[in-house]
Amino acid sequence: MASNWCCHHLSQKFLFRSPSSPAVLQRRLKFPFCPPHSVISASASLTLSSDFTWDDVDRLSQPQPKQNDSSDLRGFFEKVTLCNRNSEKQCEFIPFVIEGHIVGYVHNGFSEHLRRYEHVFTFPEDTSFGRHVALHPSLNSSEHRTEAIADVVNSLSEKHIPGIRNELYPVTSSFGTPDFFSLERAAAPYFGIKAYGVHMNGYVERDGEKYLWIGKRSKVKPTYPGKLDHLVAGGLPHGISCGENLVKECEEEAGIPRSISSKATAVGAVSYMDIDGYRFKRDVLFCYDLKLPEDFIPVNEDGEVESFKLVPVTHVTNIIKSTNMFKENCNLVIIDFLFRHGYIKPEGLGYLKLLQSLRSGDCT
Amino acid sequence: MASNWCCHHLSQKFLFRSPSSPAVLQRRLKFPFCPPHSVISASASLTLSSDFTWDDVDRLSQPQPKQNDSSDLRGFFEKVTLCNRNSEKQCEFIPFVIEGHIVGYVHNGFSEHLRRYEHVFTFPEDTSFGRHVALHPSLNSSEHRTEAIADVVNSLSEKHIPGIRNELYPVTSSFGTPDFFSLERAAAPYFGIKAYGVHMNGYVERDGEKYLWIGKRSKVKPTYPGKLDHLVAGGLPHGISCGENLVKECEEEAGIPRSISSKATAVGAVSYMDIDGYRFKRDVLFCYDLKLPEDFIPVNEDGEVESFKLVPVTHVTNIIKSTNMFKENCNLVIIDFLFRHGYIKPEGLGYLKLLQSLRSGDCT
Repeated sequence: MASNWCCHHLSQKFLFRSPSSPAVLQRRLKFPFCPPHSVISASASLTLSSDFTWDDVDRLSQPQPKQNDSSDLRGFFEKVTLCNRNSEKQCEFIPFVIEGHIVGYVHNGFSEHLRRYEHVFTFPEDTSFGRHVALHPSLNSSEHRTEAIADVVNSLSEKHIPGIRNELYPVTSSFGTPDFFSLERAAAPYFGIKAYGVHMNGYVERDGEKYLWIGKRSKVKPTYPGKLDHLVAGGLPHGISCGENLVKECEEEAGIPRSISSKATAVGAVSYMDIDGYRFKRDVLFCYDLKLPEDFIPVNEDGEVESFKLVPVTHVTNIIKSTNMFKENCNLVIIDFLFRHGYIKPEGLGYLKLLQSLRSGDCT
Repeated sequence: MASNWCCHHLSQKFLFRSPSSPAVLQRRLKFPFCPPHSVISASASLTLSSDFTWDDVDRLSQPQPKQNDSSDLRGFFEKVTLCNRNSEKQCEFIPFVIEGHIVGYVHNGFSEHLRRYEHVFTFPEDTSFGRHVALHPSLNSSEHRTEAIADVVNSLSEKHIPGIRNELYPVTSSFGTPDFFSLERAAAPYFGIKAYGVHMNGYVERDGEKYLWIGKRSKVKPTYPGKLDHLVAGGLPHGISCGENLVKECEEEAGIPRSISSKATAVGAVSYMDIDGYRFKRDVLFCYDLKLPEDFIPVNEDGEVESFKLVPVTHVTNIIKSTNMFKENCNLVIIDFLFRHGYIKPEGLGYLKLLQSLRSGDCT
């Protein structure tokens, strides 16, 4: 039984069903990912307080009444929608252009904060990009740009860019092209920079059934405390390849030695775009699968994970469909896993739409 | 060695390198799938006469000089381009609209043939669709439409719609929605109808290495004679699910019993759109993987396959990159396999663009 594999148990907490306000329902029904003939409100997910326990996970991962229809993909569509909010508000952003390439998007309101830094930002208007944000012509090298923008970010950090992480992300127009400069990770969504990450599904196969190793994030993490997470996931910082970054994260997050992690298989990518106030997240996640030895037990080494548990994939499916327990973007990577491993079948209603919705963001 | 698994050998034939005319090169370089920094002409594939042999396949599947760089994805981009020709000619087609839904596209030239059938086709112009093809209002049921259009197709078949197969395809606006009528398979591209199919990668794992079972099409097949093909593939006719159709095709094409074929895993879909004169192919292929027992030997039971051979995946990769031996659309499904099984890595130049290009058609 999966519960034998739980590394840590906590007491049970209060659960409640999410209110479905008319505005929320209207947004859901307008969303282009709606499967045909759907009435999404009927399958609204359970929303939980952030300090749910593995006992809650166990209970809600059991097949619920009315949930046995594997052709009903509505719970998955909802999770995709959660990662792709407010796409209609793109018109509130203007492009951030460097050397003729769009590298990001800045909200009209946030751009007002940047106007104070005339030696760094300019606001030209031309026929190619319309009104846009550009850099002062004197900032003509990666080093100059990185330094000048870091000063701005530091200056804005107290009031306008919370959660500085002192981690630099490369700024490019598309993956694999040269960086224009590097930017503090926490500032990336304020500049609408594309951010890349690696997410790994660590799984075990026993008697023909597959199990996923699931992490539960530490309750003291600044982002998504207490939520369910992949065994291993991380942003892709400046100057490291996806494969090398994954090996590093495997070691730090789950104590997986290189001898095992080097066997992880690159399996594709998902993307999403999420607008939340001045923040425009444009994320691309490179997905990996790693089939682990049956007797492997992960050990978190950086304090960011409270505990791990091995959960049958069929139970993970139920958790995703009927709760919001997972950190939002993990849902996409696990839904991709469910597609590739045959848990979601073409007979499901809206199969192709769901498949495509996993790359709703600019996946370049 | 893989050659031990060849079921049939034939004599060696003439090979030649494809001419790269300026027009061809220009089209390639304009194509949006070009990876960054690419000069695609440098990796132009070998083009072969259709009666190449397994000996030729063996020879060309060996790593070639200058071909060892796994980050060079240009040979794959070329194959995607082959399935997505002439996208700039979409403006020569007008929509085919039924009950307010676009179900296809008809070339301006072909529409002139349809004008003779006033009791079947009308050519209205409105603000929603512009000038378009519609059906006569009296054709208000699926049965009436199917019958009336079958008469037109039969009447046009001798001169304008060659290769009638007496196989009906469902006509829908998107997969899983009710059919508006059914149409002869050979006529589908003349009406720009979306056609769905199932393609299966049959593979074997030995000592940690994966091998794909490859078919060689009969030389007397009317379409793509002598080309390499999947172990099992077929169009999705009216009135059968993907899963059931796959089991049926497994039996007919490769002698795979239901006890094995029912274990095939649905793994996603690819799509393409190809314009060739009056023909507008809009195909969506549901992809399946089937891990076969090591001792399984496929046997073709419908005469459409000349022979099968088990080929290491690394060799299949070389064949796809450097030749045109595979039936064009099989390349897409195998490239998808290479992505999902880690043979193509994020470190490859243009990884995300290639991944996305596998769904260049309307994948709905």
